[in-house]
Amino acid sequence: MTYLMLTGGRVVNSGGSVDADVLVHNGKIEAIGNLSGLPIDNVERVDCSGRLLLPGGVDVHTHLDSPMMGTTTSDDFETGTRAAACGGTTTLVDFAMQGPGEKLLESLDKHRAKAQGRAAIDYGFHMCVTDLYDGAVDEFTEIMQTGVTSFKVFMAYRGTLMLHDGALFNVLRESGRIGGQVCVHAENGDVIDRLAADLVAAGKTGPGSHEISRPPSTEIEAVHRAIQIARMADSPIYFVHLSTEGAVEAVAEARSQDRAVAGETCTHYLTLDRSLYDAPGFEAAKVVLTPPLRTEEHRAALWRGLRAGTLGVVSSDHCPFCFEEKRRLGEADFRAIPNGGPGVEHRMIVMYAEGVRKNQISLEKFVDLTATAPARQFGLFPTKGAIVSGADADIVVLDPNGTTTISAQTQNQRMDYTPYEGWTLPGAIEAVYSRGDEVVRSGKYVGAGGRGRFLARSTL
Amino acid sequence: MTYLMLTGGRVVNSGGSVDADVLVHNGKIEAIGNLSGLPIDNVERVDCSGRLLLPGGVDVHTHLDSPMMGTTTSDDFETGTRAAACGGTTTLVDFAMQGPGEKLLESLDKHRAKAQGRAAIDYGFHMCVTDLYDGAVDEFTEIMQTGVTSFKVFMAYRGTLMLHDGALFNVLRESGRIGGQVCVHAENGDVIDRLAADLVAAGKTGPGSHEISRPPSTEIEAVHRAIQIARMADSPIYFVHLSTEGAVEAVAEARSQDRAVAGETCTHYLTLDRSLYDAPGFEAAKVVLTPPLRTEEHRAALWRGLRAGTLGVVSSDHCPFCFEEKRRLGEADFRAIPNGGPGVEHRMIVMYAEGVRKNQISLEKFVDLTATAPARQFGLFPTKGAIVSGADADIVVLDPNGTTTISAQTQNQRMDYTPYEGWTLPGAIEAVYSRGDEVVRSGKYVGAGGRGRFLARSTL
Amino acid sequence: MTYLMLTGGRVVNSGGSVDADVLVHNGKIEAIGNLSGLPIDNVERVDCSGRLLLPGGVDVHTHLDSPMMGTTTSDDFETGTRAAACGGTTTLVDFAMQGPGEKLLESLDKHRAKAQGRAAIDYGFHMCVTDLYDGAVDEFTEIMQTGVTSFKVFMAYRGTLMLHDGALFNVLRESGRIGGQVCVHAENGDVIDRLAADLVAAGKTGPGSHEISRPPSTEIEAVHRAIQIARMADSPIYFVHLSTEGAVEAVAEARSQDRAVAGETCTHYLTLDRSLYDAPGFEAAKVVLTPPLRTEEHRAALWRGLRAGTLGVVSSDHCPFCFEEKRRLGEADFRAIPNGGPGVEHRMIVMYAEGVRKNQISLEKFVDLTATAPARQFGLFPTKGAIVSGADADIVVLDPNGTTTISAQTQNQRMDYTPYEGWTLPGAIEAVYSRGDEVVRSGKYVGAGGRGRFLARSTL
Amino acid sequence: MTYLMLTGGRVVNSGGSVDADVLVHNGKIEAIGNLSGLPIDNVERVDCSGRLLLPGGVDVHTHLDSPMMGTTTSDDFETGTRAAACGGTTTLVDFAMQGPGEKLLESLDKHRAKAQGRAAIDYGFHMCVTDLYDGAVDEFTEIMQTGVTSFKVFMAYRGTLMLHDGALFNVLRESGRIGGQVCVHAENGDVIDRLAADLVAAGKTGPGSHEISRPPSTEIEAVHRAIQIARMADSPIYFVHLSTEGAVEAVAEARSQDRAVAGETCTHYLTLDRSLYDAPGFEAAKVVLTPPLRTEEHRAALWRGLRAGTLGVVSSDHCPFCFEEKRRLGEADFRAIPNGGPGVEHRMIVMYAEGVRKNQISLEKFVDLTATAPARQFGLFPTKGAIVSGADADIVVLDPNGTTTISAQTQNQRMDYTPYEGWTLPGAIEAVYSRGDEVVRSGKYVGAGGRGRFLARSTL
Repeated sequence: MTYLMLTGGRVVNSGGSVDADVLVHNGKIEAIGNLSGLPIDNVERVDCSGRLLLPGGVDVHTHLDSPMMGTTTSDDFETGTRAAACGGTTTLVDFAMQGPGEKLLESLDKHRAKAQGRAAIDYGFHMCVTDLYDGAVDEFTEIMQTGVTSFKVFMAYRGTLMLHDGALFNVLRESGRIGGQVCVHAENGDVIDRLAADLVAAGKTGPGSHEISRPPSTEIEAVHRAIQIARMADSPIYFVHLSTEGAVEAVAEARSQDRAVAGETCTHYLTLDRSLYDAPGFEAAKVVLTPPLRTEEHRAALWRGLRAGTLGVVSSDHCPFCFEEKRRLGEADFRAIPNGGPGVEHRMIVMYAEGVRKNQISLEKFVDLTATAPARQFGLFPTKGAIVSGADADIVVLDPNGTTTISAQTQNQRMDYTPYEGWTLPGAIEAVYSRGDEVVRSGKYVGAGGRGRFLARSTL
Repeated sequence: MTYLMLTGGRVVNSGGSVDADVLVHNGKIEAIGNLSGLPIDNVERVDCSGRLLLPGGVDVHTHLDSPMMGTTTSDDFETGTRAAACGGTTTLVDFAMQGPGEKLLESLDKHRAKAQGRAAIDYGFHMCVTDLYDGAVDEFTEIMQTGVTSFKVFMAYRGTLMLHDGALFNVLRESGRIGGQVCVHAENGDVIDRLAADLVAAGKTGPGSHEISRPPSTEIEAVHRAIQIARMADSPIYFVHLSTEGAVEAVAEARSQDRAVAGETCTHYLTLDRSLYDAPGFEAAKVVLTPPLRTEEHRAALWRGLRAGTLGVVSSDHCPFCFEEKRRLGEADFRAIPNGGPGVEHRMIVMYAEGVRKNQISLEKFVDLTATAPARQFGLFPTKGAIVSGADADIVVLDPNGTTTISAQTQNQRMDYTPYEGWTLPGAIEAVYSRGDEVVRSGKYVGAGGRGRFLARSTL
Repeated sequence: MTYLMLTGGRVVNSGGSVDADVLVHNGKIEAIGNLSGLPIDNVERVDCSGRLLLPGGVDVHTHLDSPMMGTTTSDDFETGTRAAACGGTTTLVDFAMQGPGEKLLESLDKHRAKAQGRAAIDYGFHMCVTDLYDGAVDEFTEIMQTGVTSFKVFMAYRGTLMLHDGALFNVLRESGRIGGQVCVHAENGDVIDRLAADLVAAGKTGPGSHEISRPPSTEIEAVHRAIQIARMADSPIYFVHLSTEGAVEAVAEARSQDRAVAGETCTHYLTLDRSLYDAPGFEAAKVVLTPPLRTEEHRAALWRGLRAGTLGVVSSDHCPFCFEEKRRLGEADFRAIPNGGPGVEHRMIVMYAEGVRKNQISLEKFVDLTATAPARQFGLFPTKGAIVSGADADIVVLDPNGTTTISAQTQNQRMDYTPYEGWTLPGAIEAVYSRGDEVVRSGKYVGAGGRGRFLARSTL
Repeated sequence: MTYLMLTGGRVVNSGGSVDADVLVHNGKIEAIGNLSGLPIDNVERVDCSGRLLLPGGVDVHTHLDSPMMGTTTSDDFETGTRAAACGGTTTLVDFAMQGPGEKLLESLDKHRAKAQGRAAIDYGFHMCVTDLYDGAVDEFTEIMQTGVTSFKVFMAYRGTLMLHDGALFNVLRESGRIGGQVCVHAENGDVIDRLAADLVAAGKTGPGSHEISRPPSTEIEAVHRAIQIARMADSPIYFVHLSTEGAVEAVAEARSQDRAVAGETCTHYLTLDRSLYDAPGFEAAKVVLTPPLRTEEHRAALWRGLRAGTLGVVSSDHCPFCFEEKRRLGEADFRAIPNGGPGVEHRMIVMYAEGVRKNQISLEKFVDLTATAPARQFGLFPTKGAIVSGADADIVVLDPNGTTTISAQTQNQRMDYTPYEGWTLPGAIEAVYSRGDEVVRSGKYVGAGGRGRFLARSTL
């Protein structure tokens, strides 16, 4: 069979939905339309009646096989990408962390080697800059030429990840000059460290203190600051994992002035409440992630921000650490709990269920937030992110009448918990195609091992 | 030939562009993709290599055959729609004005009769409410059921068109209740009347006084007010022909709060300068339109507003009055000059040349502003506004290497002038298809007479 | 005795407080300082130890003997000014209403005649413009020359008091040209009329509907609009009786841009809650005043606005109608209830108790809001509004250790109710001096009849 | 003579002006009023007819005898305070810098010793915190108890003066808890250091580069940040030497929300233009001060900010370094030029001439900005800052008909230049009284040596 035809489904793109057949050839989408009556030979036809055909998800915020806070994230490129695929995500952009004392290109090569031959789906990288040594910016061009066209910096975690404002400015300016973009973790780390130290000094060492040490204003301030610095640097800026109403307002104001300021939020900020920090014992450690979960007021602002276009991307910030590992490292002092949680597998279905089915966003907006916009933002569009002629045939077949139940028992992520434990959601991902290959069927990864390819991304 | 295939062109939709063939059947788009190799019979193939294939333009702001200010607009549905087609616009939404002493449905029927059998392209109507007589709102539902799903009100022109705020509120509330939307002409008419009367009293009766009598704040104030009133009425609101920076800011603020506030601007506000009011003699009468043209500062804000998404639609506000008619009525007193100018024919090419080719907006944004977004805003999408499977085959073939020269001598509008006289622009519209019919070829209307159909529009 | 010396008190001015003696001569303040040891003859010494000496209150918003809504306010210049004096207010600026069909100067003369020989304390007038007939603005200069240097306009009450925006603009512009200022009642009357008519149509005719018909946005919108119009008119503007958070924000924004925008609120908006509209029967009519009372959220914003300087004046909006009169006129339809309530007598003590003693504002701020700032705003400073050398000796002796109980039984206002019925407050006004005359002692007016003088006010 | 009476002058306070005599006794103001006719013995009468009597100036931002950037400011407490007195300033609040490796109290004692017995006028201190060592905040209470009730921190000058945000937060919080306040130098030092290093790397080592390295956004960003941090710390905040429109806007917004955010600007930001950085040779070093001088647009915003009350204090930021010293240290690299310039002597006359006489501010506002408000802000009111009964008799006699010419030749500051060289201004300071002592007459210091007293200031 040289052709694959998905017939009778509803093709959903960010710009609209149509009932149409989709013809796939050589891993690409060949045509869309009323095709089933055409006299084409060698076609495998798959009946998709009653199904939604969605562009494969694009998750631009994951941390696979990544050393952090004295340990390493629990998913590597094999387990993480298979979990992603099972959840309807066919493209990742993962963070290549600069290691202590390492040159940027050296760290990038190391991280690239971890993915090579192991990833189940296509992937790219952001280059995390945690130490702007003399000459570091001179490597930016070479990094960009390898197809890694975005950088990541932290405004928190002094001593390990944080850059001071002068370095942040420098990264923005140099990246901007050559068409790159900069992803910013915006929290005022120094204020947070002070608050955290005071909590520990007061004996409040449990995981619930994590949230108290990172109040909303620590994010809002940092967003304001970074916008001003990006303006001075004449550079675009992309904020990862925004969680607060004030941050949304700051981004909205900048965008209304036609500034190249983009904002991302994550599945969990949209769906989980801060009350999880009030859990007894060490349970709250499961949601020790940064920034922390917020109140309903902030969540409502995030949804509004998605609808208004202020926030353009929903990522998972998949940064998995097993509960037992969190306990081992941080039981005595919440500051030592590795910050992060799982998410890559459930981003699509949670957003579909909580967003589309609860009337927070339209189906088209859902596709935009989870696939089209991230692909466009990070130089993957239209190869990825849309079901259009010529694009990679990355397609999710979703049955709106199905249901999905989430559980640590059954998940594909290499994790001993999920914050969505026991949630039963409307909608079920029936099949996933990656470059025309059926890689997921009935919730299981059925593709070849290590078939994923590195994606050299274009500049803005 | 039962099939038409446009081959080798670049299909531009608001969400992205692809090189693809377009297959048309029975007036509809049948398929898009790599189709030329497929063994389909009965196909007329048109080579579109090197051409852009754009969705037919949707112009949601025209006044055809419309009595106004003591005269009637110079284009009727025959001349106006042919001019539109020649300019790449395949759908109009025209204003049905409520006449003095008339019931709404009565006026609507009259206006509908003017279009019936005369329009060259498809069309719909907005219902203008100029007198909210007792019981008027009770007719809204019936009007909506006929497919006229939007209303228009004026905050200026006391004594003829203006509704006071209480009536504006009532229209918004009642329309909002039943899923309609309200287009608002936002200018503080009472302040303008005062300023205009003072100018006349001071002997400044020439056409240049028109601009002075309508300073930016008269628009900005009215926009603020209408947003507040729409909020009280819990109704969406759509501002026609915005012209000022302050108006853009007000709309941006409301939108960032996820309010259903939409803004339109027009070709001329984006491209023509207020200095035209300084022309000698009666020449300035050519740009006596409302609101007036503004300074470069405002134009820059409008372009920013388009890019930022604050303004979503570019219309023509085609409201043509011949220069000699303007002189006849208003030579003695600028207040009597019929307010309006031509535009339906040149909206697409001017926006393409001044927007896309001068790097103000992307090609995709151009398509969005002139076709997709207006279709979506007014319940015509995806039948109109996109080249997608299942849509009406309304397609513009544009040669980016061609040029277009605008002149009153050669235009199809029934007008004795154009404000773009002598402009030579990059890009040429080679052909236009309406529901699969080739209606324009080489700048001439070649379709059948009166082939246009009334479009019953859906609600939001 | 040619001298009066108040010894041992604490002199409170808006700029600060000092322990000092105050020497009075010929109705003026002769000196302030450590004077009791000086060898001055012919001095009547009054021991004010432990007392606060405050500048006599200046109330710039009263309606005495004023025809309105089919009746006349219950206090005339005799009863109203005596009540004011008893409450520590020694200066009024009252509204001279333009009567139906009357010229401005004609109405002003009539109102002036009502005060002449009857007022117990000094007074001035604002000229209310309710019909801007041709030539009306030409009288402004003459009105100003008589010492009536401010105008008042209404944006509500179509058909009786309301000016449309063109007239509002004209009043602002013409007044601004000659150094006058304009007091604006900012409510969107047309929206209110619509809401009120709908309530009545729905059978909701009781007094509680009054509040529902005037939601906060009706004020906020009007404030925004008037600021824009004042900007176009290049004129200062003064908002009377602001009641909402949004209005405070609008004024704050304009003021931060150094615009001549001033805001007043009233005692009742700071101290009474909207829940009074929920009272059974006709009781709510007692607080049928415009704008209506608001929620705690708005009150908090008003207090913040006072502290931040956004709102500069606290007036009484004394517009008294007896409860029985309200019932007679408006029992069948809340729209016919005369809008207004009493306040001139209790403004000072309520603001002292609720403001100073509850730590909302400082003692100096209290003096500023109730005496200094209104005097300054309306051209009476430093003759009125401060205890400084050369000023009129208008002085209130307040015992901070005393208490005051408010009751309709004991009040001096000619009213059958007070909204503060039964309130017992810290602080007691022991004596009041007007131009050196002791006019109040032990809560009773002890001055001569009709001793008040008309105050010709200066321009800004 | 036990009494001094200044007769016939016009007493100007921030709250208003009156024609009055001022009686002084034992260094205090005894009485104000019509006093010349009173039978008082032992009075020295000074005729002040036609003169303005102003409260002695209060300058809350000076650096005397202060080690900084490898040198020491050129004025010590003797020369600096005499120069201040000659310029009409009778109170200073000087910065006690924490020295490298020193404890706060240790540095404070050292600085105090420098002033003791040398200052000509009264003085207090702010405590500069440049190293928040463990336990530093524990000393705050003791520092406050000595009457040093304000702290100063720097957001610029990494490595010498700058605190990171965590320390800034901590200082604000701890100071706020005990009623202190914090003065903040708001510039983003890290971005500035980056820009400066790049300029030097590009060979732009001259003094004009100073301005380029500190663009407006570096201040605006820091002001935004510090406001957010102060909000988190629940503390008041005072911004020193604001220079930009954006900073004024940020402070205005915070103040309109009733936040305890105060802003100061300096004489030179109001009167000198950035074009001075374009001077040839090393001349621009004379205005190498931080933040740098700005454009007219910013100056206009600062004046608006003063009028609107957003900015409440005008200080000198007197931080004098002789031109030759600037050259010695910084000729090779502008970063080594000591940052600062003279100003304490000319603040009052420049503000009077450029502010009052050029109609930017009223005479009362001038008094407020230069004397009353700073005294009030820093716990010196009403002992200082006003001519009221009981206050210290610190009085400036200004002849509005005189003129003043500024020149390095004749100035009392120990400086070899002044940026106001050759300016001839309306107004002349004829005499200055400090606690009733005539200390200046005809532009010369005539008081006793070292007569100034330390002022223990109260908390807010």
